[in-house]
Amino acid sequence: MSATDSKPDYLISPRWLVPVVPRAQVLENHLVAVSGDKITAIVNRQQADQRWPEVKRIELPEQVLMPGMINTHCHSAMTLFRGFADDLPLHGWLYDNIWPAETKWVGSDFVRDGTELAVVEMLRSGTTYFNDNYFFPDIAAAVAVKAGMRVTVGLLIIDLPTSWASGADEYFRRGIEVHQNYINEPLVRTAFAPHAPYSVTDEQLAQVRLLADEMDIPIHMHVQESPWEIEDAMEKHGIRPLARLEKLGLLSPKLMAVHMTQVSDHEIALLAERGVHVIHCPESNMKLASGFCPVHKLQEAGVNVCIATDGAASNNDLDLLGEARTAAFLAKGISEDPHALPVADAIEMITINAARALGMEHAIGSIEVGKQADFCALDFSGPESRPVHDVLSQIIYATNREQVSDVWIAGEHIMQKRQLPRMDIKDISARADQWGERLQRYRTEHRIANGKHND
Amino acid sequence: MSATDSKPDYLISPRWLVPVVPRAQVLENHLVAVSGDKITAIVNRQQADQRWPEVKRIELPEQVLMPGMINTHCHSAMTLFRGFADDLPLHGWLYDNIWPAETKWVGSDFVRDGTELAVVEMLRSGTTYFNDNYFFPDIAAAVAVKAGMRVTVGLLIIDLPTSWASGADEYFRRGIEVHQNYINEPLVRTAFAPHAPYSVTDEQLAQVRLLADEMDIPIHMHVQESPWEIEDAMEKHGIRPLARLEKLGLLSPKLMAVHMTQVSDHEIALLAERGVHVIHCPESNMKLASGFCPVHKLQEAGVNVCIATDGAASNNDLDLLGEARTAAFLAKGISEDPHALPVADAIEMITINAARALGMEHAIGSIEVGKQADFCALDFSGPESRPVHDVLSQIIYATNREQVSDVWIAGEHIMQKRQLPRMDIKDISARADQWGERLQRYRTEHRIANGKHND
Repeated sequence: MSATDSKPDYLISPRWLVPVVPRAQVLENHLVAVSGDKITAIVNRQQADQRWPEVKRIELPEQVLMPGMINTHCHSAMTLFRGFADDLPLHGWLYDNIWPAETKWVGSDFVRDGTELAVVEMLRSGTTYFNDNYFFPDIAAAVAVKAGMRVTVGLLIIDLPTSWASGADEYFRRGIEVHQNYINEPLVRTAFAPHAPYSVTDEQLAQVRLLADEMDIPIHMHVQESPWEIEDAMEKHGIRPLARLEKLGLLSPKLMAVHMTQVSDHEIALLAERGVHVIHCPESNMKLASGFCPVHKLQEAGVNVCIATDGAASNNDLDLLGEARTAAFLAKGISEDPHALPVADAIEMITINAARALGMEHAIGSIEVGKQADFCALDFSGPESRPVHDVLSQIIYATNREQVSDVWIAGEHIMQKRQLPRMDIKDISARADQWGERLQRYRTEHRIANGKHND
Repeated sequence: MSATDSKPDYLISPRWLVPVVPRAQVLENHLVAVSGDKITAIVNRQQADQRWPEVKRIELPEQVLMPGMINTHCHSAMTLFRGFADDLPLHGWLYDNIWPAETKWVGSDFVRDGTELAVVEMLRSGTTYFNDNYFFPDIAAAVAVKAGMRVTVGLLIIDLPTSWASGADEYFRRGIEVHQNYINEPLVRTAFAPHAPYSVTDEQLAQVRLLADEMDIPIHMHVQESPWEIEDAMEKHGIRPLARLEKLGLLSPKLMAVHMTQVSDHEIALLAERGVHVIHCPESNMKLASGFCPVHKLQEAGVNVCIATDGAASNNDLDLLGEARTAAFLAKGISEDPHALPVADAIEMITINAARALGMEHAIGSIEVGKQADFCALDFSGPESRPVHDVLSQIIYATNREQVSDVWIAGEHIMQKRQLPRMDIKDISARADQWGERLQRYRTEHRIANGKHND
């Protein structure tokens, strides 16, 4: 809590302030001062009244103000596949349903329309920054910039020809091009995104490691998501995927290892030692019956754990608050310890831990003076939020995405009382529906199996 | 699908109709005709236009109409304890936190205010019928009638003196009184609610069995909720709780056994043979680290399984749709089978299966001619519901309680576009906040432990 003397652009005055740093703090009667894209002060009401009586105040009388949430793993354009193929195991879901449909349909139009739909859903649920992983990252970056939203776009590497690139050389070339095109855009960052150990070669991984160091960007990768992946690796490489990544020098604080449902105690120690970040997607893992990420053990070993939604094709939404609630429940069930993943941790996993994983801890993830003005406000005025015995508990266990009333990114009031002036929701929804119809016709024509009604 | 010729009071015209019976059916261009409290016809648009051109139509152009949801286990008044004690094991949560606070505070005012808050939350999330289990069931019944909502109130039996009754005789006497007072009220039913095997004596259980048969009402009971309960039973009785209930003749289609996280294969077979209904509360079980109910195995054995929220004190909401989503995810994770608990099953578990457990299958739980006109409408107009590849999948995996736009109970349009004309939400919220303050002062004064911030 400190304050500069220069007059801020505006003050936000919430009922409760949850800055995340310091841990588990809940402030009342405090205001946040914003100048340009930055937080310039956090002051109590008396200080604000004395110093800045004439500065514009945004009153949030029944709201909690917290840092904007950060979704560390999603495939935003895949929102167009929401409910396209459910209740299937990962391998069948991916190889028999999603990949054939992607091969047929995914191009720059699909990615634009799908990412816009995803961005609307994420902003409306309090997410201000997403770590994306999909084809046409240039399009995703452009959509995010247009929406005023932060993104780290994944520079996809996969050992398959797709509409984005025909082979290894082109994947790297196009990825580096995207990186260079956005190097001066403050809202956009990049990460290498080799798809998964089973779909990328040793040579490609070695190249990723080299270039990630050179370009100083993180690496975003699905790792040890399902038992099938372990079996496949043992058969093809004679070692587990994590051991292969260790051999190739990829285990470092640069790596965001997504899923990690298959993980031995030895591997937990190794992840901690190497400073690898683990991205936990509990709903996707359960729905695909991939296994359970041992979050509690990872935390006890000192691993930085984040929570993410995965794509809406598997999950079937981009609701980070809901995902954090699921994670908080599941960690207790799996560890048989009701103290596991307490609410303060769950909040950190979608804010400051996520900023750390993305190499952005200096600028975002908490409400601290000098950091970027990225916030979301949660409305506790409804009967579903009464009474308020504990603000942090209420956020995680009893708040839904629809209670997000306002969002700020880099000082801009992006969502105001649920309105998104930058987005044409009607048009975005209409385009999503058209894709829905197109994909339905395709599914009917190709009689694509769906695990859903297996009775 | 059939139709009588008499003119209905009104027609509901949704975009999609999910009648639940027949299983997994999704109808488009169909209208539901209502006369008095009953469904009198389900007809297609052409039939409706021909027969009843002048009958009032309620248009739901972007909504799904489904049966009103049925919450088969909650402690509605405990909503006032939402977030009062979190992240604790069942035994400590109950004995050290909840029971002392209840002893101090629970009376008819507390139950009225808490149940009203719960009823508002349940109606706003599409629940039309709740199976309640708490002190002062007469008050809960009165609140439900005032709200126009269905309830089965539990006639609590517990081997402890409380503000509701001082001992066994009084629990039975007051319970029977409540039953008789409400015998002619169509919205209210009763069930015996012996708290749990560990808190009720053999004599009391024998009495419950006798009276439940005589009065022809079900029995609603927590059974085998946590490992502690099994250990305690082995120590005190030398047999597991379920074996004790079998000996006392309580295992029958009258019994709703709530939680059942500790259950052997032999016990699953026994539950199936005796026709016991199992009420699954996944979020409460995970949060208290009580264990996992083996839903998939129970279903395979032919046991009727329902999903319920439990009380908001443990969970921390009364959102049945959210609970069904959690159950659908968890069953897949636990059984390691992505086909487990498909969406059609999840929908049945909060509608027709619940009606069956409550002995009300003849009257509610599905949209069929002759049944009660109990519905809820889910609004799919928002971007979070686009595109619609599969209506059933969308309901379970991608719909939040806030999308419930309308509710009907016994033909009455109880919630209209999110408005509840029968309820004074402002007043109910203010009273809930007052209880919040009272309980906070009490917690501070008595330094009651809270597991939440255990760091």
